[in-house]
Amino acid sequence: MPTVYRVLIVGLGTAGRGFAQIVHEQGARIAKQTGAEIRVVGVVTARRGSAYAANGLDLGAVLAAETLHSLPSAVADDALTMIATRSADVMVELTPTNLESGEPATSHITAALNRGMHVITANKGPAALHLSALRALAAQKGLFLGIEGTVMAGTPSLRLGWSSLAGADITRVRGIVNGTTNYILTQMEQGLDYAAALADAQKIGYAEADPTGDVEGHDAAGKAAILANVLMNAGMRPSDVATTGITGISAADVAAAQAAGERWKLIAEVSRGPDGIKASVQPMRLPNSHPLAGVSGGTNALTYTTDFVNDVTIIGPGAGALSTGFAVVGDLLALHRGERERANT
Amino acid sequence: MPTVYRVLIVGLGTAGRGFAQIVHEQGARIAKQTGAEIRVVGVVTARRGSAYAANGLDLGAVLAAETLHSLPSAVADDALTMIATRSADVMVELTPTNLESGEPATSHITAALNRGMHVITANKGPAALHLSALRALAAQKGLFLGIEGTVMAGTPSLRLGWSSLAGADITRVRGIVNGTTNYILTQMEQGLDYAAALADAQKIGYAEADPTGDVEGHDAAGKAAILANVLMNAGMRPSDVATTGITGISAADVAAAQAAGERWKLIAEVSRGPDGIKASVQPMRLPNSHPLAGVSGGTNALTYTTDFVNDVTIIGPGAGALSTGFAVVGDLLALHRGERERANT
Repeated sequence: MPTVYRVLIVGLGTAGRGFAQIVHEQGARIAKQTGAEIRVVGVVTARRGSAYAANGLDLGAVLAAETLHSLPSAVADDALTMIATRSADVMVELTPTNLESGEPATSHITAALNRGMHVITANKGPAALHLSALRALAAQKGLFLGIEGTVMAGTPSLRLGWSSLAGADITRVRGIVNGTTNYILTQMEQGLDYAAALADAQKIGYAEADPTGDVEGHDAAGKAAILANVLMNAGMRPSDVATTGITGISAADVAAAQAAGERWKLIAEVSRGPDGIKASVQPMRLPNSHPLAGVSGGTNALTYTTDFVNDVTIIGPGAGALSTGFAVVGDLLALHRGERERANT
Repeated sequence: MPTVYRVLIVGLGTAGRGFAQIVHEQGARIAKQTGAEIRVVGVVTARRGSAYAANGLDLGAVLAAETLHSLPSAVADDALTMIATRSADVMVELTPTNLESGEPATSHITAALNRGMHVITANKGPAALHLSALRALAAQKGLFLGIEGTVMAGTPSLRLGWSSLAGADITRVRGIVNGTTNYILTQMEQGLDYAAALADAQKIGYAEADPTGDVEGHDAAGKAAILANVLMNAGMRPSDVATTGITGISAADVAAAQAAGERWKLIAEVSRGPDGIKASVQPMRLPNSHPLAGVSGGTNALTYTTDFVNDVTIIGPGAGALSTGFAVVGDLLALHRGERERANT
């Protein structure tokens, strides 16, 4: 008999729908392979209603519904009410990211941990701003706090550092952690100027109508803070990351790099040295032979520099509904294996 | 108080010395960070003696000694005697690889499991030839069998597949898993012909005096069999892998690929489709834009193709004393975390 994990999904945007779709379509296979049955019992949205069924929701109906109000399982809960009053084992926090306050996600996570639920999130806000406090609370309660999806979506980039490379001394991690800017820079190599490349990224949904968070490097800075906090217990905030975006890169800059056998990449970097831990986000020209130079379009990559195995690089998708949904599945299976998030310090 | 793991090292070649060096120099830090104290109590070699000390060997003396006969801790045990009669928690098997018989490693591993010791090995022979039987024995005894170091040395390439990507459906894994041939092909791109590139690889210690196992693809075929067995429970042997080496690649072939914006790579591939599981090793021309095309010299790489996260690639060293030694440390920490090797099926 598989172990059943009763899950609340808080936030049913792209990531929440991706997670629900994976559970709906592949949950039986995952349970058979891993012994972990993921049973979604509650879903709460900000503006499209909520649903709860103690024995498990019909996820096909949830995914097909315009709003949840019409479902037989519809309830009137807001997020904090559902967390406070409904029965579940795991709260999955997938509301929109706010890198300044970390809300409402941080309040949801705190409430769930205080009520004895494990927490899994792909929301960068709480991880970038409040990780130490949330980890301490989870540890005090003996609960799992999974944040794999906050960096590189479903590509297991954090787990590589804190788990697979445990025992090695990680002195630096650097990489391409924002797909929007990487796509824009890749398009500029095809001859587009910055404005045209941005418009193209917006057209295909890679960039938002207000692209500031991506192109000014704030999203990458949030991820750099998460890396510093997860891997080095840095207690760093996004505002501590020295950040330069890509808006100053011109078509001429891109062409000059190409002529020299180099490519512009927006590089996030965290390093630990004699002067302490430093974090930065900045455009850099990398030679074509550099492992990160070949990472194009929406693909992301991280290179860990360690004492024993030198550089280890992981490359994979940095966004996407199924990829981010899989990050939640991966964390849930890590919980099932008995892992607890921890820092490599 | 850290948990103490008393370890026997069977085979003190490059990998065994690398593991001993890591424990000697970094064991205290690792214990502090992870709670796992690695205490080497026994070392056995084929021709340079053996040593055992129930409270832990002086690894500095072991690493400095010409032979172990001169040490105060010297004993007369051969490998099977040490495994059968000495007290330890983990047997680390690092004798030379034999891809035809899997011996003597398979006998060592079987004896250790039967005596109740966990086993960690970087030896490809047992993993490529006898994995199903050894796993069944380990499972029956409730013991850990770690084989991370058999593919890509300390780069956690197997763990990425069976643990970090657990829950995803892996339909294909392909990559560059032999550093010697990759180094030769990279050198040929600098204008050397095959014979000169091979001689160069031999000079710097990348290729053995008899390079057959590498250049004919046998080493890569062994790793393909391991991947098929670990990730897909294929029950496949190296001889089941359709294998072509690089000896047929001429300087003209390499130049023609370069002129077309492509690079020759020796690609190991395992895939699962409607016709079952297939495995091959063969030279392929990859476009320069392919993620594996940029993997040069002795570096290795594996790309997992999955349903949820598309392609995830890991790149890192494929050989080396410290890297292979770290693979053993990584497996020991996985044992400490309570993981058990398992297949993703």
